[in-house]
Amino acid sequence: MAKQEDQFKKVLSHAKEYGYVFQSSEIYDGLSAVYDYAQNGVELKKNIRDYWWKAMVQMHENIVGIDAAILMHPTTWKASGHVDAFNDPLIDNKDSKKRYRADVLVEDFREKISEKIQKDVDKGKKRFGDSFNEEEFRATNPNVLRRQKQIDEITLELTRVQEENDLVGFRQLIIDLGINCPVSGSKNWTEVKQFNLMFGTQIGASAENSTQVYLRPETAQGIFVNFLNVQKTGRMKIPFGIAQTGKAFRNEIVARQFIFRMREFEQMEMQFFVKPGTQKEWYENWKETRMKWHLSLGMGAENYRFHDHDKLAHYADAAADIEFNFPFGFKELEGIHSRTDFDLKAHEKFSGKKLQYFDHEENKNYVPYVVETSIGLDRMFLAVFSNSLQEEELENGTTRTVLKLPAVLAPFKAAIFPLVKKDGLPEVAKEIMEDLKWDFNVFYDEKDAVGKRYRRQDAAGTPFCITVDHDTLEDKCVTIRHRDTMEQKRVAISDLKEIIKAEVSVKTWLQKI
Amino acid sequence: MAKQEDQFKKVLSHAKEYGYVFQSSEIYDGLSAVYDYAQNGVELKKNIRDYWWKAMVQMHENIVGIDAAILMHPTTWKASGHVDAFNDPLIDNKDSKKRYRADVLVEDFREKISEKIQKDVDKGKKRFGDSFNEEEFRATNPNVLRRQKQIDEITLELTRVQEENDLVGFRQLIIDLGINCPVSGSKNWTEVKQFNLMFGTQIGASAENSTQVYLRPETAQGIFVNFLNVQKTGRMKIPFGIAQTGKAFRNEIVARQFIFRMREFEQMEMQFFVKPGTQKEWYENWKETRMKWHLSLGMGAENYRFHDHDKLAHYADAAADIEFNFPFGFKELEGIHSRTDFDLKAHEKFSGKKLQYFDHEENKNYVPYVVETSIGLDRMFLAVFSNSLQEEELENGTTRTVLKLPAVLAPFKAAIFPLVKKDGLPEVAKEIMEDLKWDFNVFYDEKDAVGKRYRRQDAAGTPFCITVDHDTLEDKCVTIRHRDTMEQKRVAISDLKEIIKAEVSVKTWLQKI
Repeated sequence: MAKQEDQFKKVLSHAKEYGYVFQSSEIYDGLSAVYDYAQNGVELKKNIRDYWWKAMVQMHENIVGIDAAILMHPTTWKASGHVDAFNDPLIDNKDSKKRYRADVLVEDFREKISEKIQKDVDKGKKRFGDSFNEEEFRATNPNVLRRQKQIDEITLELTRVQEENDLVGFRQLIIDLGINCPVSGSKNWTEVKQFNLMFGTQIGASAENSTQVYLRPETAQGIFVNFLNVQKTGRMKIPFGIAQTGKAFRNEIVARQFIFRMREFEQMEMQFFVKPGTQKEWYENWKETRMKWHLSLGMGAENYRFHDHDKLAHYADAAADIEFNFPFGFKELEGIHSRTDFDLKAHEKFSGKKLQYFDHEENKNYVPYVVETSIGLDRMFLAVFSNSLQEEELENGTTRTVLKLPAVLAPFKAAIFPLVKKDGLPEVAKEIMEDLKWDFNVFYDEKDAVGKRYRRQDAAGTPFCITVDHDTLEDKCVTIRHRDTMEQKRVAISDLKEIIKAEVSVKTWLQKI
Repeated sequence: MAKQEDQFKKVLSHAKEYGYVFQSSEIYDGLSAVYDYAQNGVELKKNIRDYWWKAMVQMHENIVGIDAAILMHPTTWKASGHVDAFNDPLIDNKDSKKRYRADVLVEDFREKISEKIQKDVDKGKKRFGDSFNEEEFRATNPNVLRRQKQIDEITLELTRVQEENDLVGFRQLIIDLGINCPVSGSKNWTEVKQFNLMFGTQIGASAENSTQVYLRPETAQGIFVNFLNVQKTGRMKIPFGIAQTGKAFRNEIVARQFIFRMREFEQMEMQFFVKPGTQKEWYENWKETRMKWHLSLGMGAENYRFHDHDKLAHYADAAADIEFNFPFGFKELEGIHSRTDFDLKAHEKFSGKKLQYFDHEENKNYVPYVVETSIGLDRMFLAVFSNSLQEEELENGTTRTVLKLPAVLAPFKAAIFPLVKKDGLPEVAKEIMEDLKWDFNVFYDEKDAVGKRYRRQDAAGTPFCITVDHDTLEDKCVTIRHRDTMEQKRVAISDLKEIIKAEVSVKTWLQKI
């Protein structure tokens, strides 16, 4: 755990130092749980978005994109259930005036009991050594049994109050457990209240005429309300998909873990409309397709796993996460959900409009079923960035920090150096840059010794460094060095473009799927 | 004017019919002044954004990008002046309960007087025929003189109340002019109040702890607050620029003209930081550079003009618009502003942090001056779309609707047709599609006669149609048809990629600058 935290701290400081992520409005001491993408971060984010869009839209004849607005008609969120049910249960301590999520208070309390059991187990291990049987110990030790019973009781009651939305019972559970405020230490609690996570705002000018609207908490609904317009004007035939990338907003009470959980974040979603009855097949299909997309980036199959949901949301008949091994453990990176016809039917009901598809083969109308793939762009950014940041011991005993970004996603594809800042070398280097920049994002650097420049580009994640030396003037060749292998090769200037293209192009990487 | 309105109506209906722009949340009867980009619109918008980004960031060694959040620390908007001064003066009619912009009421009233003068002039023309001297008539006719005097008095007083923010005087002007409500007809007016155009929302959960924040009304401030972090981590040397594309929001009272003025819109901005004293030179330089970018798209030099501002905003020492000939006349498409050191100095004052640059050549610190280029992405979309939509009379007497989008911006670069839906032609056509789609967005269509398919792609804006016929099976050649010329050529399948690339690549188009 300590090692993980250490790695996470390095990720944070490296992200700032190398121009990937800054705290939002840092000069004003920041805005909680909001971040800005800096000069390299904006390119990495853009490249991830493009890699997703190419794979999902351009490569699929039956998937098209849209770009719906963040502000939508407020009835959208009545229909989707967000106005009534997108809530967190909150409780205030009257002495500290601090506000908490009621479920988090109970879960933290339960976690402490788990930790006590673990301590008992550890003590047993120490005492009995090799002869220790953990399973037997847990099944017989009276302290452990008592504590495990308490945990089970808490879980049962917590599930009940959540499912029944029993706010009075929720408070009573906190009182009964004797939970006190981490700040004031008191048990002086208010009622539990439901707090909606949507950001609200007013549209229109006059008090009487203004309308309460919301910043969308998810992009999916923008696809559902446009479903029929896209299907008709695009003459789409089922099965087909509509994809979208864009911002969504949630007023999280407890927002932490850097860009993993933000109040303003970006989603990349695709809703796939299918014939009722075929959704399970498509669900399995999209699980596989999406996992292949992730694996194409070469970040290690061992860092991904599926987590199939036992407990399903009210709109789903199957759901799974693709989890990634973040610096703080395996967490959700993408969700694949079989959403049934819940959303389209809800919009039919609230809008009074038919949202049906006429199937020529079946010769009938129906409301399609939907399989969704939904990935957090910021989470994907964090997955790529944290996985790529490595410290390597070199043969000469020194270490280097290297950001081994998949080359297709790297902000700059190559850096161009003149060996020295004279003898006409900068001019040649700039000529090469001028030619390459039509095709790639390239960087020019002439400051410090070449070794130091290599290290800077390693840390910034640039896959290739190209050095122009005195021989270049004669042989029209340069030295190209690969970030990951540190191998150097002498190549003709005229071959540079094809060499780089072969390693960084979207085509090269997508073909690995 | 009638012709213009007619053309604008065609633009609106074509945008919907061909999947470019839909009204937002249309199934709920829409959200005023908010629009969604549909399956073709999202690609056109993306291509415009990429064309700008490539030209501004990738091609300029000394310009980098960022992607700052929409939500910023609220003090940002105190410093920028938006909290205090980003207002419209509003007045309500007590009988109709309708709300109006006070300045628009006065301006409309003044406009009616102008129209009366024009009528007098027209009458004079009719009466005196060829011997009519308009200048002399205006200078001597008592009716015209009286009306012109009234106009001048209104302008003088309107300017005064606006400049002095004299809200009582503003109302008095409306009363004195006898302006009545267009709905109720009454003169029963409330006070004039300033209404801030920023959308507000609350961040954080508890009543005591929540913070009033705003949806950013412009993207520029996200660049200013990050200026020093970017300069330092990117080791940037003045002059250098920071570019950004992203959403901004304004709670417009009167929002109209389709996507020209929306409540949610997207900006493409670049702030260029220069040594104080050199700003005029850079201002002229960027005016020229930006105009060249527009002209590279080939939409007709006669459709652009500069409008230099006489009256400058409080932060500017020079400002000009690039105006485009929209269906409703010449209007602002892009602004180039010499913003001085106003913004950085304001953020220094409000944050208490130094926002200075150390100039090694001059060996001193200073707050840089800023030259901004700011373009509305949605306006650019409307300019491209409306300019491209044409009805052509053909030699055979029929007409065709063709969307002559610059090929680099077209959503789909090519459409692939099998001549008939049998004899193995669809298989060959799909093989060609599978190969081309690695490089371009391509469309497959096998429905209806080829002529009809051509017309559909003309109207959708696709530059190339490729038809596979029976000869293809023998000669490995296809017919490629150009949207604009309707010329057809027989070419080898193996040459297709290069032929298309030469006409649609960003490089081809940017080289025209």
